Order: sequence, then C-alpha cells, then structure tokens
Amino acid sequence: MSKFLIDRFSNLEPYVPGEQPKEKKYIKLNTNEAPYPPSPNVVDAIDKVVVAGLNLYCDPDTTKLTKIIADFYDVDFNEVFIGNGSDEVLALIMMAFVDEKTKVCFPDITYGFYRVFSKSFDLDAKEVPLKDDFTIDINDYINCGRNIIIANPNAPTGLVLTHEEIEKILISNQDRVVVIDEAYVDFGSKSCIELLDKHPNLIVVQTFSKSRNLAGARIGFAIASKEIIEDLNKMKFSITPYNINTMSQIAGVESVKDNDYFEKCNNKVIATRERTKKELRKLGFRVTDSKTNFIFVTHDSISGKEYYSELRKHGILTRHFNDKRINEYVRISIGTDEEMDKVIEVTKKILYEAVNYNFVVGK
Amino acid sequence: MSKFLIDRFSNLEPYVPGEQPKEKKYIKLNTNEAPYPPSPNVVDAIDKVVVAGLNLYCDPDTTKLTKIIADFYDVDFNEVFIGNGSDEVLALIMMAFVDEKTKVCFPDITYGFYRVFSKSFDLDAKEVPLKDDFTIDINDYINCGRNIIIANPNAPTGLVLTHEEIEKILISNQDRVVVIDEAYVDFGSKSCIELLDKHPNLIVVQTFSKSRNLAGARIGFAIASKEIIEDLNKMKFSITPYNINTMSQIAGVESVKDNDYFEKCNNKVIATRERTKKELRKLGFRVTDSKTNFIFVTHDSISGKEYYSELRKHGILTRHFNDKRINEYVRISIGTDEEMDKVIEVTKKILYEAVNYNFVVGK
Repeated sequence: MSKFLIDRFSNLEPYVPGEQPKEKKYIKLNTNEAPYPPSPNVVDAIDKVVVAGLNLYCDPDTTKLTKIIADFYDVDFNEVFIGNGSDEVLALIMMAFVDEKTKVCFPDITYGFYRVFSKSFDLDAKEVPLKDDFTIDINDYINCGRNIIIANPNAPTGLVLTHEEIEKILISNQDRVVVIDEAYVDFGSKSCIELLDKHPNLIVVQTFSKSRNLAGARIGFAIASKEIIEDLNKMKFSITPYNINTMSQIAGVESVKDNDYFEKCNNKVIATRERTKKELRKLGFRVTDSKTNFIFVTHDSISGKEYYSELRKHGILTRHFNDKRINEYVRISIGTDEEMDKVIEVTKKILYEAVNYNFVVGK
Repeated sequence: MSKFLIDRFSNLEPYVPGEQPKEKKYIKLNTNEAPYPPSPNVVDAIDKVVVAGLNLYCDPDTTKLTKIIADFYDVDFNEVFIGNGSDEVLALIMMAFVDEKTKVCFPDITYGFYRVFSKSFDLDAKEVPLKDDFTIDINDYINCGRNIIIANPNAPTGLVLTHEEIEKILISNQDRVVVIDEAYVDFGSKSCIELLDKHPNLIVVQTFSKSRNLAGARIGFAIASKEIIEDLNKMKFSITPYNINTMSQIAGVESVKDNDYFEKCNNKVIATRERTKKELRKLGFRVTDSKTNFIFVTHDSISGKEYYSELRKHGILTRHFNDKRINEYVRISIGTDEEMDKVIEVTKKILYEAVNYNFVVGK
C-alpha cells in the first residue's frame, strides 16, 4: 500500500479470480467457461481488415451491439447498457446506487465479486445467510430497505428463485434497485427481462462470458428502465467512455446473430450437466439442482478440499471455496462430454482410494 | 436520471468523445488517432486460433503485456499497471488518491477527461489557468498541497514542460501524487519514466491509442513505484478483474515487439506535422509549438468556429472547443501527407472566401 492511498480504500480487498494455470495442461473446469469456441461467425468476422483498423477508436456508444441486444430481448435501445464484462456493469451499478443511505444486501453465499466490491468501496453491505439447504429465503428481502443483488441462478449453488418470488422482493422495495444477475440464465431458467415493464426498480444483468462462449472478449450488459440506463451511461462516460474495444463489439454482434449455435451449445451443456449429475449421484454425491453450467457437489467419504486436491493431481482443475458453510463442496464447471467422462472416471478412482484410506485408519 | 441515483452523482457530467461520424466519409482529423494501421505483426497475431479461444477468460494479470512494457521501459514488472485505455488508468488513479483531504488540481485547459471525472465524482478539483501563451506556470503547482495531473505534452496546446520544471513540482509536493499524462510523448518529447527512481510520488501514464496505432484496442498504462501500482491493481481487481480482453493483450504485445514500425510511423507523423505547421504559418496561422500528433491553430481572418465548420463542409473533420480561452483555435490531428495536403488546399480556399466575405461586409 502506498502512503497516498485515501482512507476510504484502506480495506481494499481484491477479488481472487479463478486460477489460470500456465505451467501444465489441465482439464479446466474451474471458471465456468464454455467448453466450446465462439460461433464460427465470430471467428470469421474478426479478420485482418478489422485488426488493421484498430488505429481508429471504437464506437463509444457501442451502437450495433446495443441495438442487436435490444432487438434480441425485445426492449428499447436506451434500455440496454454494455460493460467491459458484467463485473464492470455490477461495479457501476453499485457505484451509482449504493451509498450510506441506500445501502446494499446480497446472500452470504453468492458470486464473490459483490462482497469484494462492497468491502473495497467501504459500502454498508449486509450479507443475508442462505437457508441450510442453500436456498434463498425471500422473507429476508421483503421491505429490507436496501438495494438488493441476487444472482439467479445463484452461484456456486446453481439454485433458482421463481419469478413470483422475485416479484415479491421487487414490489416491497420500490425505493431501491433490485439487481438480478443472470450470468447463468441461459442454462435452463427464465430471464426476468419480461418483468421490466411492471417493475421500474429492476435491473437485469447478463454476460457473454458463459452461454455466449466469449469470456475472453469481456462483454456484459444490463437491461433496465431508460432512466437507470441513462445513469449507468453517464457513469461510464465519466470513467471509461470507450469501454468496449472494436474487436469485442464485433464478436458480440456476431454471437447474437448466430442464435442456432447459441442454442445448440447451451443445450449440449445442459444435457452434459444432467448426465453428470446423475452419474455423480450414483457414486453417492449430493448434487444441488443446478440450472447453470456448473455443478456443486459434496460427498460424505471425502472432504471438499481433498476431492478438489485429488482432482487437481489427476489433471482436473475445479473450484473449492474456503467459506465454512460450503467448504465440503466442490464446484465443477460443465465441460465437454469427454471431459466429464474423465471427471467421473477419476472420481471413481479417488473415491476408491479415499474409502480404502479411511478404512485403514479406522474411520 | 433515475430516482435511485445517489446524491454524490447528482452532478454527473459525461465526457463528450470526439465525433465518430457514421453517415459520410470524412478525412477524420478530430480524435488524434494514428493515420497508419497497427504493426503488421499485430494483424498477423490476432488470427482464427486466437478468436476461437475466446471462450476462455483472458489473463487477469495481463502477464505478457505487463512484462514486455516493463522490459521496454526498463522498469520492474510490478511497477507497471495496465488499464482499459488510459482513461481507466486515470479514473482509477483519481479514485485511489483523491478525496476531500488530498484534493486534485490540473490546468484549466487540458484533456477534458480530468474535469469530467472530477465533476462527476464530486472531487475538490482546482483548475489552474494556463498563462496567456498557453504555457503552464509551474509556480502555480509548487507546494500546492493537492494531487496534480499534468498532460505533458499538454492537450490541446501541444506544449511541453521540461524535466527540470516537473522535478520542481515533484519535490515540492512529496505528500501528493503527481500524474504526468504522456499520451503524446512519443511524438518528440522526453518521458518522465527516467525520473521515477528519484521521485516516489510520480505516476507516468501512457497509452497505446496514439503512437502505437491501437485506439480501438483500448490499452493504457501507468508506471510508478510498486506501492502505487499495488494500490491500482487492488482497485482494478475490485472493479474489473479481467479488464483487458485476450485480443487486446496480444495486440499490445505484438505492437511493443515491432519497434521499427513504431519508430517509423511516429517519425512520419512528426515530419508531416512540422511540414504542416510551416505551410499553415505561411498562410498567416498562429500555430503552437506542438510536440504531439495534432496541431493547434488560429487565424486572425476567420474564427475558430467558422474554420472548423468550413473544413467540415469540405469533408475534413477537426475539433473545436467552446471554452472561451481557446474558441478561436482549431485542433487538427496529423494525418497522412496526402490528408494534410488536402487540409492545406482546402484551407487556402476557405481563407480566400473568408477574406473576400469580410472585405465585402467592410471588416
């Protein structure tokens, strides 16, 4: 820390991104990336002409990308805001709408970014415990008097709130924004975008990083009332006016255009997920009912930490969290069928060894 | 504005980016872009393999790009911070180091982003008037008790402070950071990076948007003490952990590698600039001694606004600012030799018509 850092940021606590190993080839199931490349149309569109034109600025209004997203979700152009990944969208939302008066809350177990941002920016953030079964008790959010952020499906649990439940939260908190982070919505749950007409305090956030196979291009977006979007745009133009580079704008547009590919990839991920759930349950795992591109699993015969470590030794990278309530669990992103076959195969071996081991030491 | 926006941002005032016209082909000399494409190595490197790999996250530590910048400027890896354009770098610097106690100041005529950010974030920002000849009076900054931001060369004047002058400012403000924004340094002035060893309160900011022909890729960076860089990294990891997308990281690396191309392009811009200055002076313009990739010009026989409008009518886009002190001036980015020949030719025509017109109405 330098002596120049202002007092407000003395608690700066950076988010720790999922490991991006450089030394060894792993089956990489630790950051919920898509196992398939972006649409071939994206690959074709970013050609030598595009790259040779990078001496010119990108469109600061991200006109084409905004328009195609608006059309896709059947909302107006001025109801869409695009950020450098949904992290930037979420950060700008928290900057714009949270202060000591309006505050914020979110589940205690959820996407780690909300907590990191809140701590770093010294926000009054209440972490609301999930129930023991990892579901959200919506009563905790009724009339809560704070801005609310809920990942739906939630991460890393994969569990979903119904629209009826979300509407109760929206109606009882009309003076605060309710952010529904739908990073994983395309893997089998229903977007709240259709609720926007009824609820001017709703902000839906989505990303191109998961279901659109573009984590490396950094595109996230918010859909909300035009007044909220106007606020976010003003924030953006004060911080990073040209926030989406030329290549990513094109990648985004082409990705939305190729809806067949989008649906095909996501359907494959869903099928692979359901099959993997079934196989792991057969092996004695408890597996949450994830509607995302990852599963969240635990087993009585091996600790979360050990299962994570053993998978890693066998060349499979997953994610283990140290939070006490979930440290018996491992989060496994859904890869290709071949990759998940490998997970099952290795898991059988690990369990066999673990049970043997436990037996020997008399457990 | 939505009713949810917090009080702090009630004065949100967005930066107005230079016009990016879509309707008509202009000679585009309004946003100080390079007139030449990025290095051919950049064009070759962003190939189908790279784009097909965008389903994976980019490196959040921007390792390769950070390393090559550090090597190029002969500083340590942990003395370099990379942002999504230098705007993001500057925004994070102002967030991290400016509060009601430490404050900030910058010239009244300079890069508009400093003012916009300060107003939007309600910072205590003092705008220090340039002298009548548009130079900076360093006495205004000696012992000023505020953080300081100086573009060097300054924009839109193009004028340069010497290292001796900058060191006086650094020495007299050791409890505050002094940000030297060197967006245009590669067009004929000397970087302050060599002063870093002596001055732990110095932050040098540069960009790939001008001299590296990559405005559309969004890469800016800061070089400073490792403590300051650590602060900026923590800020980044709290807001946009993956701030530089995969393609731009590669573009940046390849651009730094191709030093011959970098020097060749910048030398061409410098030669074209000097020739254009000379030609315009012959036509009666006053032209500041710009060390950048733009010139700042005024003429007694035609107002700044009229000259700008006439150039525009003739298909040449430049930049005119409404600030009273500089509204008789026009800023013209340096294009190719052919483009600048066209500027001279059109200017002769405009002047001829303007002088005729003024003569008729008896001026």
